[in-house]
Amino acid sequence: MPIQNALDALSTLLGQRLTRSKSDLELHGRSETHFPLTPPDAVAYPETSAEVSELVKICAAHRVPVVGWGTGTSLEGQAQAVHGGVVVDFSRMNKLLEVRQGDMDAAIQPGLTREELNEELRATGLFFPVDPGANASLGGMAMTRASGTTAVRYGTMRENVMGLEVVLADGRIIRTGSRARKSSAGYDLTGLMVGSEGTLGLITELTLKLHGQPEAITAAICAFDNVDDAVRAVIDTIQLGLAMARIELLDTETVKAFNAYSGATMPECPHLMVEFHGSESGVEEMATTFGEVIAEHDGHGFNWATRPEDRTALWTMRHNGAYAIYAARPGWKSLVTDVCVPISRLADAINETATDLTEAGLYGPILGHVGDGNFHSVIMFDPSDADQFKSVKAASNRMVERALAMGGTATGEHGIGLGKLDYMQAEHGQGWAVMGAVKRALDPDNIMNPGKLVPPSN
Amino acid sequence: MPIQNALDALSTLLGQRLTRSKSDLELHGRSETHFPLTPPDAVAYPETSAEVSELVKICAAHRVPVVGWGTGTSLEGQAQAVHGGVVVDFSRMNKLLEVRQGDMDAAIQPGLTREELNEELRATGLFFPVDPGANASLGGMAMTRASGTTAVRYGTMRENVMGLEVVLADGRIIRTGSRARKSSAGYDLTGLMVGSEGTLGLITELTLKLHGQPEAITAAICAFDNVDDAVRAVIDTIQLGLAMARIELLDTETVKAFNAYSGATMPECPHLMVEFHGSESGVEEMATTFGEVIAEHDGHGFNWATRPEDRTALWTMRHNGAYAIYAARPGWKSLVTDVCVPISRLADAINETATDLTEAGLYGPILGHVGDGNFHSVIMFDPSDADQFKSVKAASNRMVERALAMGGTATGEHGIGLGKLDYMQAEHGQGWAVMGAVKRALDPDNIMNPGKLVPPSN
Repeated sequence: MPIQNALDALSTLLGQRLTRSKSDLELHGRSETHFPLTPPDAVAYPETSAEVSELVKICAAHRVPVVGWGTGTSLEGQAQAVHGGVVVDFSRMNKLLEVRQGDMDAAIQPGLTREELNEELRATGLFFPVDPGANASLGGMAMTRASGTTAVRYGTMRENVMGLEVVLADGRIIRTGSRARKSSAGYDLTGLMVGSEGTLGLITELTLKLHGQPEAITAAICAFDNVDDAVRAVIDTIQLGLAMARIELLDTETVKAFNAYSGATMPECPHLMVEFHGSESGVEEMATTFGEVIAEHDGHGFNWATRPEDRTALWTMRHNGAYAIYAARPGWKSLVTDVCVPISRLADAINETATDLTEAGLYGPILGHVGDGNFHSVIMFDPSDADQFKSVKAASNRMVERALAMGGTATGEHGIGLGKLDYMQAEHGQGWAVMGAVKRALDPDNIMNPGKLVPPSN
Repeated sequence: MPIQNALDALSTLLGQRLTRSKSDLELHGRSETHFPLTPPDAVAYPETSAEVSELVKICAAHRVPVVGWGTGTSLEGQAQAVHGGVVVDFSRMNKLLEVRQGDMDAAIQPGLTREELNEELRATGLFFPVDPGANASLGGMAMTRASGTTAVRYGTMRENVMGLEVVLADGRIIRTGSRARKSSAGYDLTGLMVGSEGTLGLITELTLKLHGQPEAITAAICAFDNVDDAVRAVIDTIQLGLAMARIELLDTETVKAFNAYSGATMPECPHLMVEFHGSESGVEEMATTFGEVIAEHDGHGFNWATRPEDRTALWTMRHNGAYAIYAARPGWKSLVTDVCVPISRLADAINETATDLTEAGLYGPILGHVGDGNFHSVIMFDPSDADQFKSVKAASNRMVERALAMGGTATGEHGIGLGKLDYMQAEHGQGWAVMGAVKRALDPDNIMNPGKLVPPSN
């Protein structure tokens, strides 16, 4: 049996750091949301890039699937070993290798989480801004092209990964990018790997852009009578060139869930949450201009959080968004989905989605990173009700079809994984076949996270 | 003869828009700098994406090389048909197709130049910021991953191209990206095409990000006793989070050339040229802070250009930089080269390069986009002196080796073309072979701009 031969060789390589215990296999077979358990054949805990390379060479020789694992917080089942094989858990490769303050960059290992990195950076005056909510590993965030609340100001992982070390499907180790801030030297292999969900290789090191901690921060929340007014206010704000660090939309259902879960007392209507970073006077000027824009669009109940503890309370409430919604339907499961559309279509996309969910009799609050045109719905279902899950899935399909018809994308930040594979053909057409050709060129035996991202026939 | 059969078929397709006149072949065989003339077999002037697709299918059937051509302003001979074949001139595909003001994006054809685009955008309050100096075509700028003076604030073509229509080597037309501001839906094919120098396909349409025209702009120039002080001032400015729209370094030799060519009267020492974009008060605050930083680093002769005509004079002088240097050695030719290093190494890289050029007895003023760590040297040589050209080439080699040893890249913005191919192995190692594998997957017969970017054995 090739798998047994591979596991024997991996045990020789890694010793106790190759495990086959039932609990470890189950822990690495579960998803954050609704996907069924897919325990792998083994879990490996490498400690060096050389070990990852040897591990992949063994798996390649025996054609055993290799699936990377960070913290398991991806939302579309990206790290699930649907064809079995070896899950590579990067938790032992979690070091901050070097911070170069003058260059505002850092070299890190993939298992380091974003909160760990920012904790280590605290005294340097620098920080890493990409914030998907979960305390995800930075390797995982690169692989899913994660973003979150701050992308409107600081960009996504696409803009903040300068270079990578990657172990390819044949065990070769390559370095992509450089420490220069820009380059025209050939194909952008860093960009090709970011968002590739482990289907082209495993990241063993990252060079990340850092940003200066802002001198001043101010945040606010305000209410609107309807989603259209809120979105129009955001569009005006962007066109004025106000550099918002975050701008989040909560629909009425989300506000109700937040009130219930976090003890907030917001009026039950759509809200915007916003944050500005800059100098003391710069932030003050932005806040004033923003207040004027809000007033033009009948915003009300404007509330500034200038004290750090008030800001923390505000963003903790936002980051607990999914939990607040889960708590509204105890014992139920969730399909957490996201789409991204041109901002001119955002109000339509949200309103049509909300109407659709209501008409289908489903509970799916909507919230999102409105400055990017990116929004989420957390659609709840009773796991004992198979028909309801079908109805949830159908509503999620319609949400994607609507986004594509508006010139948008099936996912702004959650990625493809298992949940969005069915939309790749519709979104990319012949471009999906091109992705398949790139995959075959770099992984001809299809051992890197098989069953994901590229056409199944690949 | 396959080439004659292909040309016959192309004539049938394009009629008078396929030319073989000697003057047209020579015009499309020349480079902006020192590369020898390489006239193609024919020049095609398609008018639609469908024509480009048919054209490529004919060339594919006869294995005839296909080379894209915008304005011919690339600096490393990217558009030279070194293996003959058909040069595809996009000058008849130069329309602005659509501006979507609410979304701040535009759909354009590849032959439109950046100045034409900005002229058409003038009344909209929006602009396209990437500015390589030359009035290049936007398709060509995408293909070389161009940037220029404003990249420090607005990014390069990598950050400003949202999506593409591309004709592949087999004539298939794909669309990459979408009109959403971000996406996690699969491999970043847009990013793979941007910077690919025509080796994977021809761009037939681009979706570009636009930016709001700033409410206020102010520019300044100031002098320093040495390059180290100027670079340290820039590093401090970046770390303070000042959003410079441009920051350019001129070395002493460049300043002398500018004085002679543009009638300026700058003291003969290194200078910084800077520009800030923002609100009236924001720009004023940035200018004040910048003035303080400059003073800490012994900057002097500080001169603000707040009137539009003074700013225009300043940046015209900068954009004429190469011409000023050419004028200093009438009848000579130039090797125009660029590298990019981590900014902490920039002063060393510039000083060592300047010393090296002086010791080699060469005239090569240095100037650059110092906020990105990117600098250029325009190294002049007497075309009748073959030994001097060898010496220029050797100095340029050492400049690249120095940049790579510092963690930088062989080219920050000019690209690979013919001039930088020899450094790809040193910069990318096994990564270069990976680029070759991607190329073979998408262009197995090597008809798209053969002889460029990937390993020659490809």
